[in-house]
Order: sequence, then structure tokens, then C-alpha cells
Amino acid sequence: MAHINLPDLPGIRGPMAFSPATAKPLNELAEMLLRNDNNSLSRGERELIGAYVSSLNDCFFCQNVHGALAGHYLNCGIPEIDAIKKDYASTDISDKMKSLLSIAASVQKGGKYVKKEQIEAAKKLGASDKEIHDTVLIAAAFCMFNRYVDGLATWAPEDRNYYVNRAPQRAEEGYIDFDLYK
Amino acid sequence: MAHINLPDLPGIRGPMAFSPATAKPLNELAEMLLRNDNNSLSRGERELIGAYVSSLNDCFFCQNVHGALAGHYLNCGIPEIDAIKKDYASTDISDKMKSLLSIAASVQKGGKYVKKEQIEAAKKLGASDKEIHDTVLIAAAFCMFNRYVDGLATWAPEDRNYYVNRAPQRAEEGYIDFDLYK
Repeated sequence: MAHINLPDLPGIRGPMAFSPATAKPLNELAEMLLRNDNNSLSRGERELIGAYVSSLNDCFFCQNVHGALAGHYLNCGIPEIDAIKKDYASTDISDKMKSLLSIAASVQKGGKYVKKEQIEAAKKLGASDKEIHDTVLIAAAFCMFNRYVDGLATWAPEDRNYYVNRAPQRAEEGYIDFDLYK
Repeated sequence: MAHINLPDLPGIRGPMAFSPATAKPLNELAEMLLRNDNNSLSRGERELIGAYVSSLNDCFFCQNVHGALAGHYLNCGIPEIDAIKKDYASTDISDKMKSLLSIAASVQKGGKYVKKEQIEAAKKLGASDKEIHDTVLIAAAFCMFNRYVDGLATWAPEDRNYYVNRAPQRAEEGYIDFDLYK
């Protein structure tokens, strides 16, 4: 049971329906970071960063919502996304993405864990300032979303296919103005 | 030197000027959480939660900006705010605020560190569901802001009076539509 009396919706949708005034900028931030097309990182790559940080924060809801979205965009399934979350270095994602996930993992521990050497390595692999900026902010934002979801003890559907099945609709609708109660 | 090429502004203002599209929802979130008047927690109490979490995250810029704002609203100075950040339990803030700072400290570690007993204690001391919700989201949001500031290695003025001197202007202008370059 959630720590406070929330609308009976899974994950972040409960507190967002409880507090629409804060849900608005939270959803606008997600839209701008994860879906806006003015970005050289694909939607799949950005969702992957969010899913990876959510797995490091052990947030079941967020890592499944965003892992399923990453899988939707990247045309792969739960096993492939799980493999990346478990040990991205041994997968066949690009070296640039590996360098960005390394930065995201440091941000998850705390801002000061990001080392100059990690940034230099990412730049050498072709990461732009904007890509590094967005990686840091996506990782930081998920440290917020994950804490919001778990800090209020929200519930989440246990069946991981629930998230996979909903991903195409979420990918189409985006994060703004979707019906929280649907 | 910052990890990427940012406008030469202190703290979060550098990355916000670098990325106005994400600065907009970030500032709207801060405005809604910290300044909106539809709230039974005072502006000073909410800034205090932000300053406290920023101190736990060792973010010099954020803990001084928001510590100075808390001091401005609560009519106290750096020593009193520092005493709360160091050991709030031994200060004369209300028992309800102590219970909320305890929840904020757990959120800083991770959402799952918030225990049912802490929530029950806060409720017994008069905390409403909205106050608990806002405490969790303020703490979570500062876990984002702090990582954004330090994850990009931004610089910050060392003189703590800089922040105290700017607090009245920030309190008056709020977080939306202020001139980032001023």
C-alpha cells in the first residue's frame, strides 16, 4: 500500500494524478529529454539511459516502462534490454553509447562521481556536448523519478509483458497530455 | 572547468542557459514545489528541505542558494541553517519538520529507504498527505538538481555571502522567467 492516499494507478501515475500541478512540468521534462526530435541520440538510446539508471536505482516500475520503450524503439525484447542493464560493456551497443552509460552510472551514484576521464573518453568516441549534457540530465532526472515512485511506495504490475504491451501506445502518445487515468 | 562548454554562469545557470528547452520545465517544477502558495508548508520550510538534501548530496551551489533562501524566509542566518543541515534533531524546528526532514534524508539515499514508520510518525505529528508528497518530491527533485550541477562540474562562487545577498531578489522574482544571464 502506498504511503499516502493516492489514486489507484500504477507507478508514477498515482502521485501524478494526486498532484497534477507538479505532474505537468515533470511530463514536459520527460517529453523534452526523451522524445524531442532535436537530438542526435535516438529515442531508443535516451529511453535506454533512463531504463539503465532506473535499474541501478532498483525501481521496478520505471525500469520496465522505459526498458519496454527502449525495446520498442530499438526493435529488441526484454532479454536484450536486461543484458544491457546487467552488463552493457559485454553487449553490442556502440562504444559511444557504452561511454554514455558509464557517465550515467556515475551520475546515479552522485554528480561528483563523474570523472574528467569519462567525459574525455566519450568525446573521443564522438559524443557531442549536447549528448553529454542530455545523458547527465536524463540520468539525474531518473534519480528523481525513481525516488518519487518508490519514496511513496507506489505499486506496479508484476507482469513485465504489461509494460511491453503498453509501450507502442506510450511511444505514440508521448508524455504530455496523455490521460493519466487510462 | 565544466565538463562541457557552458555559458560562464554559476551553478545550474550554466547548463540551463546551454539548454533552455529543459530549463523551462525544471524551473516550472521548482516554482510549483518551492514557491506556489497553495501549500501548508511555508516557502522557508520547503527551501529548507531542498537545502538539507543538497547538503546530504554535498552540492555546494544548491545548498547555498536554497539555504540562503530558507534563511531569508525564516529570518535566520547561515549559522542557524548550517546547524539544521548538520543535526536538525538538536535544533528548535518543529517536530513535524523534523519528521519531514527524516523522510527527505531517506529519499536522498533512495526511494526504498523511506519506511512506513517514518510516514506514520510524520502523520501523528500532523503532516498531511500533501505535505508528505511534497517532501518526497522536493527531496527527489534536489537529487536531480544536485546531480545536474555537479555531474557537469559547474563552478560556484566560494563566498557564501554571495548567495545570502542574492536571496531577496530570487525570493521576489521566483524561478520562472528570470534572466539567466543576469
